[in-house]
Formats: sequence, C-alpha cells, structure tokens
Amino acid sequence: MASDARMTAHGATLTSTSTRHDPWLDQYAERTRGLSSSAVRALFAVASRPEVVSLAGGMPFVSALPMDAIAETTARLIRERGHVALQYGSGQGDPALREQILEVLAPVGVESHPDDIIVTAGSQMALDLVVRVFCDPGDVVLVEAPTYITALSVFSSYQCEVVHVPMDELGLNPDALREAIARVRAEGKKLKLVYSIPSFQNPGGVTQTPERRQEILDIVSTNGVLLLEDDPYGLLSFDGSVPRAIRADDSQAVIYLGTFSKTIAAGLRVGWAVAPHGVREKLVLANETAMLCPSNLTQMMITDYLATSPWLDQVKVFRELYRERRDALIDSLENHMPPGTSWTVPTGGFYSWVDLPPGVDSTAMLPRAVAARVAYVPGTGFFADGQGRHSLRLSYCYPEPDRIAEGVRRLADVVHAELDMLDLFGPAIEASQKTAAIAPASDMA
Amino acid sequence: MASDARMTAHGATLTSTSTRHDPWLDQYAERTRGLSSSAVRALFAVASRPEVVSLAGGMPFVSALPMDAIAETTARLIRERGHVALQYGSGQGDPALREQILEVLAPVGVESHPDDIIVTAGSQMALDLVVRVFCDPGDVVLVEAPTYITALSVFSSYQCEVVHVPMDELGLNPDALREAIARVRAEGKKLKLVYSIPSFQNPGGVTQTPERRQEILDIVSTNGVLLLEDDPYGLLSFDGSVPRAIRADDSQAVIYLGTFSKTIAAGLRVGWAVAPHGVREKLVLANETAMLCPSNLTQMMITDYLATSPWLDQVKVFRELYRERRDALIDSLENHMPPGTSWTVPTGGFYSWVDLPPGVDSTAMLPRAVAARVAYVPGTGFFADGQGRHSLRLSYCYPEPDRIAEGVRRLADVVHAELDMLDLFGPAIEASQKTAAIAPASDMA
Repeated sequence: MASDARMTAHGATLTSTSTRHDPWLDQYAERTRGLSSSAVRALFAVASRPEVVSLAGGMPFVSALPMDAIAETTARLIRERGHVALQYGSGQGDPALREQILEVLAPVGVESHPDDIIVTAGSQMALDLVVRVFCDPGDVVLVEAPTYITALSVFSSYQCEVVHVPMDELGLNPDALREAIARVRAEGKKLKLVYSIPSFQNPGGVTQTPERRQEILDIVSTNGVLLLEDDPYGLLSFDGSVPRAIRADDSQAVIYLGTFSKTIAAGLRVGWAVAPHGVREKLVLANETAMLCPSNLTQMMITDYLATSPWLDQVKVFRELYRERRDALIDSLENHMPPGTSWTVPTGGFYSWVDLPPGVDSTAMLPRAVAARVAYVPGTGFFADGQGRHSLRLSYCYPEPDRIAEGVRRLADVVHAELDMLDLFGPAIEASQKTAAIAPASDMA
Repeated sequence: MASDARMTAHGATLTSTSTRHDPWLDQYAERTRGLSSSAVRALFAVASRPEVVSLAGGMPFVSALPMDAIAETTARLIRERGHVALQYGSGQGDPALREQILEVLAPVGVESHPDDIIVTAGSQMALDLVVRVFCDPGDVVLVEAPTYITALSVFSSYQCEVVHVPMDELGLNPDALREAIARVRAEGKKLKLVYSIPSFQNPGGVTQTPERRQEILDIVSTNGVLLLEDDPYGLLSFDGSVPRAIRADDSQAVIYLGTFSKTIAAGLRVGWAVAPHGVREKLVLANETAMLCPSNLTQMMITDYLATSPWLDQVKVFRELYRERRDALIDSLENHMPPGTSWTVPTGGFYSWVDLPPGVDSTAMLPRAVAARVAYVPGTGFFADGQGRHSLRLSYCYPEPDRIAEGVRRLADVVHAELDMLDLFGPAIEASQKTAAIAPASDMA
C-alpha cells in the first residue's frame, strides 16, 4: 500500500513500451516500483532544443569560469601528480581538500574538523548516503512544502514516508514543524530526519531569517530529531551577506551538506557532508560500499583551484551574474503575467516559485508552453503528495537576461491563453486536467 | 537475527570508542548495523608506510600512463569544451563515450547498443545500483567462494543473504551452482542474482574456460536467474588472448560490468554496465537518484584518450608489466614458502590466492606480517560466512618486481615462524586464534 501511494504521489505516470516487455519485471526490489520514466522527461528532451527558452533546469552558468587558468593548473596537476590524481583515493576524500573545505565553510559560520568531513560525488551522493545510513522502509522524513525534487527521489528510493511541512515567507514554518513532529510520533511512526534548505530554497526561493533558524534548531534539538541542512546556494546571496548555517550553532543535531557545483563546477561532482563524528564514520563506510572513493583528480582540481585562484572573487562574479538574471526574471514577471499570478523574489540562489491564477494547472499547461518555446518545472514535482498543481518553478541561472525576458513573455502568453480557455469552458477544463503528479528528469532540477 | 549473522559473518568486530558515544546510535537503519570499522582497517593504515611491502591493495600501476599526453588533451578539453565538461551531464552517461564503449567491448565479444549502456562512477557504483534495483532484504545472491570484498559490502548493505558457491581450478563450479540454486529455491527464498568474475577472478586468480562459461550461462538461463558478470580485468590477460565474456552469448540473461579503472585510470571513476533494456532504464533512474550524473569532465577525458591515444598499445604495456610482476610473485613463492603452502597461478589480472599450511591462521598472522613489513589481505574478508581463515590474497599489481620478491621473502619468514609456534604449542594456539571474520578497508581490495 505504501508503495502504491508513492507511485501515484511522486513516481511517474507513464511506463514505456520496452519496460512492458522487460523479462525481469517481477524481479525488481520493492524500492524500484516507484522508479519509472515520466511524461515530463520526454517533454524536456524537446525543451532542450535551442529555440526553447528553458527556465526549467538548475544548471549553473559555468561559462563564466576562468577556463584557461583551470586548464593550465589541471595540466600541471596531471604532469606532476598524475600518479596520485589518476589513482584510487580515500573513501573519506582527499585530506588536503577536507582542510580547505573548513575555509569554504567559514563564511557560513561552520567550524569543524577535517575528520568530521566526508567528500562525496556531489552533495546529491551525500544526501543519498545519509538516507541510506538512517532510513528503513516506512521511516518518516519531514520536508519543506515544496522541496528539492531529487531529494524526494532519494526518500522514495529508500521507501521513506515523506511528510510535507508548510513554509511561509521566512521558510519552514516552526509551528507547522512542531505539529508535524507531534503528529508523526502520535501515529507511532519513526521520525528520522527533518530535511531543510534554509538559504535561497529550491524551489521556493525563500530564506530563513536568523531567528527562524534558531527556532528550528530549538525544535529539532528539543525533540531529538536529526536536521539535514542542505546548503548548495548559501554563498550566492545577491547582497553579499552570507546567511549563517544552522549547523554553525550545533554540531550534534545537524548534518550539513555542501557542494562545489554552484560555486566552482558541477561537472567535477564534488560535494561534502559535515556530520557528527559517529555518523561520519558510517557515511565513509557507506561511501566506500557505493563507489569506493570519489575521484582523486576532480578533488585535486578543486584543491588547486581554491589554493591558486581568487575563488571568492569568482563567487562574486556569479552573484552579480545571477542577480542580474533574477532582476530580468522579476521585471518580466511584473510586466507580463496576468493578475492573480504571484511569485517569490529570491535574495540569492537560482529559483523563483510562481503561483498561477486560480484554475490554471501547471502540468497540463506544460506541453502548450513547450510548443510556445518556453519550459519550466511544474509544481507537482516538488511534492510527494500531489500538491503543487497550480504552481511552477522558474530558474534564471542559465539563460542570458534577454532570453529570460523573452521566455517570460512567452510563458505569460501561454498563461493568458489558459485563462481564456477557462473563461470559455469554465471549471470543466480544470476537472479534466486533473492528472497525477509528475516528476521531471532529476538532472533538470 | 539475520542482521546479527551479517555482523559476525562479514561485518567487523571492533567498534571504535567514538561510536560508543554516538548520540544517534539507535537511529540508524537496519542495513547500517553491518557497517563498522574493522581491526584490519587500522592495520592497513600502518601498512601504507613506505617501508612495508604491500601485497594487499588492488591499485593499478597508473604511473605507466602517458601523463604528458593526458595533461595536454585535458587542458585542451577544458579550454575548448569546458562549458560542457564542467557542467552537469546525462544520468545515463555521455553519448559519445557510450558509443566508444562498444569498441572497448569488441575484444570480449560483447555487442550492444549505446542505449543499453549506462556509465557510472566506477563499476563499483554500477554494482551498487544493480543490487539497489533488484534486491529486497532477505533476497539471495549466489557468489563465488571466495569473492570480491566490496561486492560483499554491497550485498550486506542491501541486506541480501549471500550464499557462496565453490570454485575449482576453472572457476565457478557448475554442479555446485545447480545445487545451490535448487537448495535456495527449496528453502522458499527469493534468488535474485548470480554474481561472478569469470576472468582472472578477484581474489582467486582463476579464469573460466569457454566451455565453463557456456555451462554457467545454460544454468542461469534454464533457471531464469540473472547473471551479474563483473569483468574489470578481462583485457589484462598475459598471453594477449582476451576471454570471451559470458554476456557475448546472451543479452537478456546477463548484466555485464566494465571499468576503465584498470585499463586507463582508477582516479577518474568511470565504469559502466551493459544491461537488458528494461533493466538499463531502471539503472539510469537509480543513478540519477544517487548522484544525478557521473562527471562530464572525467568521461570526456576518457573519450579523448580513446580517440587520440593508442589505448590498446597502452593495455599491452600494462599486460607486460603485470605479467613480469606475476612472475616475480610466483617465482618467490616457489623459492621461499614452506611445504604445505599452495597458490593459484593467474594468467591475467592482479591476484593470486594462497592457501597456508594446516593450522596457520591468516587473520591472526597479519599483525606479525605487518611488523615484518609485508601486508596482504586475510582470506576471511572474501567470504560472508567465516571461511578463508587459512588463506590470503596476494596482489602483484602495484609494487616493482624486486619489492614483490622482498615482500614474499618476508611473508615466508613469518609463515615459517607461525609453523614453529604451532610445532611448539600445538593446536592450542590454533584454537585461541579463532577470531571472527574481518573485512579490510574496501579501498584496499
């Protein structure tokens, strides 16, 4: 039953023809039942055509990196230390990099020890390992409503029960969090993790204030629940003021996930977790089991980059670039979207969350948007329980500002057309649009 | 109970002090119970000192690679295609690399389609994903006796029941395989996979003949069991004759795992699986959940290397180099080991399996060997059921031939000393040496 619920709530709707003839279909594990290709995935294949403005993907704008400098240091690295860079490494990650991660953590206020850091193949892998280490089937994870799509895939993959906790304009709502903890425990369920993205939340675009963070920390500490703090965008604030991580104020109640994907390069697949010591030990063993070790080469590339480049200056370049794009998005939304549409104005990060006028269904609208050469991620993908039909996520990280403006114009036209349809045919349209929740391809989100 | 059995059988024996004070100790998942640091792991930290000859690790000799050429092509790659190499990529892996993998598969006789290949962060990750996709707790996996250590960690991590099937000098024994399948099914258990390393087996050093492979394929096909064929060493035969993969003769009954770790560079973490189409679809979704995508940069480095270097000539260099080291190992064993010791003579790959004289316990002997400045992996690590106490694995891939000879001389002295002790004190020593099976650090194996 739990597995069926997951399928409708968060898995996808279409099964491809080839899967129907899969001779091993009755051999898969229970956890695999929630895994199948979605209709949205096929749409995104179309959306990747150059004529489509994609406001869907969360790809950082890596072209702004100093390619020549990276090329040169990488070549020297391979010439001089190739016998290490091209060899197996440590399951916990390169010791030199773990030292440097402490410096990268300084702006968010996190103090730790290299021994309590584990390097992973992107912070996605760290997230997967944390859930692997903590969650049995049926264990409950509390997440923001909405939350990061591929975190939902991880929770589903380990057969967790996902319970959404509402957010307000300051992020995760403390009263709702207290209620959810009490309710889950009253139901006799095992609560394992609270998963939160406090800064420039994906997909909500909201950021917890310092007071809000303190209150959330108090709640998890008082209740003895582990907080999984995911912080990929922390350094990418538009006014340069970096939000203090929740982990900065408690080393035992929080596992902190960080990544170089947004500040350096996603293609290197290097992220990390800072975890209480006993947990870190388990994570290293799980990392070794899953992939032996992360790539020495890409870790050492980051080590060299941090040591030889003005990397914080480069982060400033990214901040300016993304701020300009955020402005382009918000200005265009203000100028073109019909009344009844609302959106968050992010102060950092990659995303804005848009609530459509009543009656407009973002999943049903997507094929028409792609036909109009603009793509977004429908809201239902960010929920495990079917919410989000009237919302969508727009990302402004990758396209140039004028393309963003053009994309929003196209999107506004599509929304206007949806409203005209609703005027003509009324709520019958809305009822016929009731489709199951559909998750997009995870690499798009 | 199953979980306790795993702990004694394959997990480790020592729990570190810090873990004892872990405030989250009662929160871990069932699957995590089998995960704890081993005593052997601490020993291997000592064994990594330069004065110790390590015949333990399975590190390829990457110093033989053309570092200057790799440095140059990598620099050009970053300069010219950095915006792709440093960006997120496909969860299935780079399409160009999947095309090239078809060429790499030609020598082992495997014909496939790029769409049925998935690229992973090393073949370890492919192994983990296959088990994730197929195995529920309690499902049975049949493996060779002995088998690859970190495969056992994966099976344990997904709470599989591991059943060992004896090998003979031609590898996995067909009669024993038939019996094991019948027995497992008679017990009403779900048999999900047969895991085999047909060529230059790790740790056994044996290779299945073509007739043996055909017989094993017939058995799994007749019984409707999926064969997981792990082939990291296939191209590294010493006479240059590459064994034909089992997958070459059946595309539906076999999942084939390959890797560039032994033919190019382990530090790039690039491996792959060739799977029946429906299975491959599941593996891609699982890969995206676990780590979004493998590194574009390291995949493209391999793409460039395969396209621009005489990579098969480099494989020949590796073959010659490892053959010379195999010879050094076998000659030294013949010259120095006491009567009653026997070993396999591998015709390719990295390892020889050594059976010690009656009464000598390889786990109990290890601290004395490390004190004598030689390291190996004790036999128990390669079994899930406590077998292997009187055996050990020697690897000859990494040290220079004269160091190998010196290492074997030291090891022979230690074995002689053990025999002297046994002569003096008799079987009382042996009884006191009965320790639980201990798995070494996976990155050593």
